[in-house]
Amino acid sequence: MSEALDPEPAAPEPPQAEIFTLAVDAMGGDRAPEVVVNGIGIAAERHPEAKFLLVGDEARLLPLLLANKRARAACTVLHAPDTITGDCKPTAALRQRQASMRLAIDAVAEGRAQGVVSAGNTGALLALSKVVLKTLPGIDRPAMAAIMPSARGDVVMLDLGANVACDSRNLVEFALLGDMFARTVLGLTAPTIGLLNVGSEELKGDDRVRRAAEILRRSHIGNQFYGFVEGHDIPGGTTDVVVTDGFTGNVALKTGEGALKLATDLLRQIFSSSLSAKLGYLLAKPGLDQMKLWLDPRRYNGAVMLGLNGVVVKSHGGTDAEGFAHATDVAIDMVVHRFNDRIREGLGRLGEAMTEQYPLAAVR
Amino acid sequence: MSEALDPEPAAPEPPQAEIFTLAVDAMGGDRAPEVVVNGIGIAAERHPEAKFLLVGDEARLLPLLLANKRARAACTVLHAPDTITGDCKPTAALRQRQASMRLAIDAVAEGRAQGVVSAGNTGALLALSKVVLKTLPGIDRPAMAAIMPSARGDVVMLDLGANVACDSRNLVEFALLGDMFARTVLGLTAPTIGLLNVGSEELKGDDRVRRAAEILRRSHIGNQFYGFVEGHDIPGGTTDVVVTDGFTGNVALKTGEGALKLATDLLRQIFSSSLSAKLGYLLAKPGLDQMKLWLDPRRYNGAVMLGLNGVVVKSHGGTDAEGFAHATDVAIDMVVHRFNDRIREGLGRLGEAMTEQYPLAAVR
Repeated sequence: MSEALDPEPAAPEPPQAEIFTLAVDAMGGDRAPEVVVNGIGIAAERHPEAKFLLVGDEARLLPLLLANKRARAACTVLHAPDTITGDCKPTAALRQRQASMRLAIDAVAEGRAQGVVSAGNTGALLALSKVVLKTLPGIDRPAMAAIMPSARGDVVMLDLGANVACDSRNLVEFALLGDMFARTVLGLTAPTIGLLNVGSEELKGDDRVRRAAEILRRSHIGNQFYGFVEGHDIPGGTTDVVVTDGFTGNVALKTGEGALKLATDLLRQIFSSSLSAKLGYLLAKPGLDQMKLWLDPRRYNGAVMLGLNGVVVKSHGGTDAEGFAHATDVAIDMVVHRFNDRIREGLGRLGEAMTEQYPLAAVR
Repeated sequence: MSEALDPEPAAPEPPQAEIFTLAVDAMGGDRAPEVVVNGIGIAAERHPEAKFLLVGDEARLLPLLLANKRARAACTVLHAPDTITGDCKPTAALRQRQASMRLAIDAVAEGRAQGVVSAGNTGALLALSKVVLKTLPGIDRPAMAAIMPSARGDVVMLDLGANVACDSRNLVEFALLGDMFARTVLGLTAPTIGLLNVGSEELKGDDRVRRAAEILRRSHIGNQFYGFVEGHDIPGGTTDVVVTDGFTGNVALKTGEGALKLATDLLRQIFSSSLSAKLGYLLAKPGLDQMKLWLDPRRYNGAVMLGLNGVVVKSHGGTDAEGFAHATDVAIDMVVHRFNDRIREGLGRLGEAMTEQYPLAAVR
C-alpha cells in the first residue's frame, strides 16, 4: 500500500538484498542521540553492506558523527526539527509531521529505506507505523514480537503489548507472523508454535484460545502447532514460538526478565559476600561469564512490529550502544531475508485454509 | 451459610484458636497418600496444637500411619471409598459425594474442621469448595493466591487461575482478599498493593483495570494502594501484593517460576562443568545453598482459595512431604489468625465505600 505514496514509481520493488538502507530515529531513547550514533557505529562494522539514514537534529548529530568514523561512513543525515517525547500520546504524535520518528517512517513508506529502528515512544511508533505504512493485506492488527532466552535456545514471543485484547483471528495471525519471524531471525526451518493458556487441569481455558487452536491445527502450519503451553514453557523452551494476547505477553515477558534479574542480582550478592565466595567466583568464572552473556538483556533488545508494510524495530529506550546495535541487527536480518515477502506468501495460504473451513465471520 | 448444614447447632463459632482441626484429603496428588501422611508428620511436629482429620482409603492409610508415629498421634482417620482423579471434570467431581476431597470439605462445612488441605485436582477443589462452603457474603468469586519470592521479600499474588475473566469489581475484591492474606501469612501491618498492567507508555491500559484502580484509591485501603505495576515488579518486590485476573496471574506465576528454574539449572550445569568450577561451588557454597533454599519451590507451596466460608489450601500435586507440610503450615496460619473473620470485617468497610461512591451496578 505504501507504493501509492512512492514519489519515484520507477524504483524497483523489492530492493536487491545487497544494497539496503535503514532509517534510524536518532532522537528516540533515554540517551539519544549519543547511544544511537554509537550503536550505528557498532552495527556498521558488523554489516558493511548496510547504509543508514539518520533522522534527527542535525546540529546535535554532526559533532557525534565527526567523532565516530564508522558511523559517519555509513550514515546520511536527514534533518528533523521535532522530537516525539516519551510521554507524548499516540494521537498527538500523529500530528507531529516533522518529528524524527515520523520522517524515518516516511522514508520507509516512500521506498528510500527498507526498514526503521527507533528507541523512542512505543505507542507513537506503533500508531505512526500503522497509519503511514499500513498493515499487510490480510493482517488485521500488527503485533510486537521479541526473543527470550530458554533452556532449549531462543524463543519468539508475541504479542508483547500492541493489542491488549485479541480475538481468535488475531491469535492465528500472530502465530503465522511468529512462524515467519522465527524462520527469519532464528534461522529455523519448521519452528514449533505454542498457544499460551492456563493449566488445562485448573480451568476450562478460554474460548478465544481454544478456537484459535482449532484453526491452527487445520492450517498449513498445523504440523508445527504444538498446542497449548503454560507460563513455565516459555523459559523451558517447549516451543520455538509462543503466541498470546498483548496484555498477557507483556506481563509474561517482563515477569520472566524480572525473575532472571532477581537470580543474577542474588548471585552478584553471594559472590561478593566473602573472600571465599569471591575466590569461588574466579574459579567458576568462565561458565558464569557465559551465563551472564547469554542472559544479557541487550542480546534480546529489538522488539519487532510484525504485520506492517515495512520492517519496524523498537529498541529499548534505556539500552546502550551495544543494545541499540543489536536492535539494528534484528532489522537488518529481516530486510536481508525479505521477511515481508515471505509473510505475504504465508498469508495467502492461511487465507485459503480459513476460507475453506472457517468463513471469516464465524472465526471472529 | 455453611451453618445450615451443621448437624450440631450447639457447636461454638468461631472455634478457639488453641484447638483446631485441619481436614486433609489424603488421596490427592501424584504420590498420595504417602506424601500426605509424611507431610502431616512434619507439620504435626511444628504445630503440636493441630489435629488432623485424614480423609481417604483406610486400608492404605493405616499401614502408613503405623510407620509414622508423629502423624499417627495427630490424626483421626475418616474413611472415604472414592477418589477424585486428576482428569475428573468439576461437574463430575460434584457428583462424587463419597470422595476423599468431598468428605474433607464437608467436614469444614459441618464445623468438624476449620480448614482443608488437598493436593488433588484444582478445578474440582475450587468447584466443590464453592458449592459446599459458599463464598463469603459480599464476595462474588473466590480467588487463588500464593506467595512468590522477590528482591524485597515475599510477594502475594492473586488471582492465579480461579477466574479466567474478571471485571473491575472482582479485581477490587481480590485486592481486599490479598491485603488480608498478606497481613495474615506474611505478618505485615499495612501491605502495599499493586494492580498488574502493561507499561503505561506502551499502551492505554485496560478499562477494567483503570476502573478498579479508581475504586481502590478511594477505598479504606486507598493509602496502601500503590497503583499500577508491571511484570518485572513482581520479582522486583515493588509491592507486597499483586492483583490481576486469573489468566494473567497464572501465566505470570508460572513464567516467573520457570525463569528462576532456568537460572538455577544453568548454575547447576556451570558448577559441574569442570573441576575448577566444582571447587568454586564449594567456596561459595554457604551463599549458594541459602539462595537454593530461598528459591525452593516447596517453600512457596500452598495456594489458597480466598473468599470462601472456610480455609481451603491447594498443595502442588507433585510436591514431596516437606512441600505438603508447607501447604499445611499456610492453612494453620490462616486458621490461627482467624483469616475469615478479618475478611468479613474488611468486606463490610469496602461495601460502605463502594455504595457511597460507586453504586454496584456502575462498577461492573
